[in-house]
Amino acid sequence: MSRRNKIYEGKAKILYEGPEPGTIIQYFKDDATAFNNQKKGTLSGKGVVNNHISEYIFAALGNIGIPTHFVRRMSMREQLVKAVEIIPVEVIVRNVAAGGLSKRLGIEEGTPLPRPLVEFCFKSDELGDPLIAEEHVLTFGWASEDELDDITHYALRVNDFMSGLFAGIGIRLIDFKLEFGRLYEGEEVMTVLADEISPDGCRLWDMKTGEKLDKDRFRRDLGGEMEAYMEVARRLGILPSADITELAEHQQKKEG
Amino acid sequence: MSRRNKIYEGKAKILYEGPEPGTIIQYFKDDATAFNNQKKGTLSGKGVVNNHISEYIFAALGNIGIPTHFVRRMSMREQLVKAVEIIPVEVIVRNVAAGGLSKRLGIEEGTPLPRPLVEFCFKSDELGDPLIAEEHVLTFGWASEDELDDITHYALRVNDFMSGLFAGIGIRLIDFKLEFGRLYEGEEVMTVLADEISPDGCRLWDMKTGEKLDKDRFRRDLGGEMEAYMEVARRLGILPSADITELAEHQQKKEG
Repeated sequence: MSRRNKIYEGKAKILYEGPEPGTIIQYFKDDATAFNNQKKGTLSGKGVVNNHISEYIFAALGNIGIPTHFVRRMSMREQLVKAVEIIPVEVIVRNVAAGGLSKRLGIEEGTPLPRPLVEFCFKSDELGDPLIAEEHVLTFGWASEDELDDITHYALRVNDFMSGLFAGIGIRLIDFKLEFGRLYEGEEVMTVLADEISPDGCRLWDMKTGEKLDKDRFRRDLGGEMEAYMEVARRLGILPSADITELAEHQQKKEG
Repeated sequence: MSRRNKIYEGKAKILYEGPEPGTIIQYFKDDATAFNNQKKGTLSGKGVVNNHISEYIFAALGNIGIPTHFVRRMSMREQLVKAVEIIPVEVIVRNVAAGGLSKRLGIEEGTPLPRPLVEFCFKSDELGDPLIAEEHVLTFGWASEDELDDITHYALRVNDFMSGLFAGIGIRLIDFKLEFGRLYEGEEVMTVLADEISPDGCRLWDMKTGEKLDKDRFRRDLGGEMEAYMEVARRLGILPSADITELAEHQQKKEG
């Protein structure tokens, strides 16, 4: 790791120059943040679990024809991705009211939405990722109309796929965050899914118990974050059980 | 006034039952509020000036084919309008960054926007009129797709007309708020411009001096609110000068 050139360090990941031009290594940290960095913590093993969950989902989305930046997982905490220009718009898809939407619009958490809702936020830590509309994206040129069409189309397809994926393992997909990037290949520019998909950026509720299996456990001081993340990985059938046990022990040792 | 049935009292207006079915009397108060009712005051004569300015603009918009609820001014503070069902979406059209937009997106006040920006807010005092996107309007059924198309089309036409109107009298139209309603006529439902258009809901800057001729004088404790509102009326050539003098004296007496 020492000889790698760090390109960017974010809240949950570090990006390094990849082995070939046009590639990047995404390194998943254990750092957890919430409320625009006002709450910080470390969840031992989170980076490993998220790397595996995100690998699983990005590979599956690639298989149904959604273009992504993902190339392959390299190690427990690293994956190789294509270098893209990140579009500074966070995309949130919601099936059930929760979190910011409930607060902003006074809709009780848990209320199913009449149809999936695609929201956009301006990606800016400084401004707290404020909600915007397509109009703002177009007015300030953060993405073109064609890119917005791609983004909305892909976001709804990801929602359909992930709703099915999680339903199959007894989990209700409440909402999730996506990021997209521009992939330059020769003369062509493609809109591709980027960043990660993990319990850090999804709301996942157990279908029977309603238990939260996502970052709200951290945000709301519910505890058992790593157990919840690993439960998601376990149900998806990813991570060999040895790894899970090791992570669980690591976690316990840290807590004990 | 005493025998009239009050239908609704808002922050700046009172609605009474009109003389015929399907009509309403809009009574313009002198009350001024800002920051979601956290700041309150009275601007003597504001209701009179806003009634006249709004009459002028609504009549002119009707003349260029934009359907409105306006019928006619009845008195110094009253106008007759058609009863409509208010669509619970505030429409803000912006030409230059100011106020909430500047704060939310970190854009310096006074920065011209590359194109007019149409924003929507959910009309809810309780929630502080939160910014929403078309997606929210459609998801929660606050307006139909056709109504949203009408609203955006009319809002941009109003912007073009008012930009010209104010440019002609040395005033730069920075932004303004509109409300729309559903007018039921027999089997038909029409989307029509409703509420009012006045310096209470517009940002108007003098082209030469940059002086604010709008409610920001009240919001930001700049003083001279009524002088500014009357200056707008005076430049529009509405209100006989006697009225203006009377109002100015009234205002002075109150302050002295």
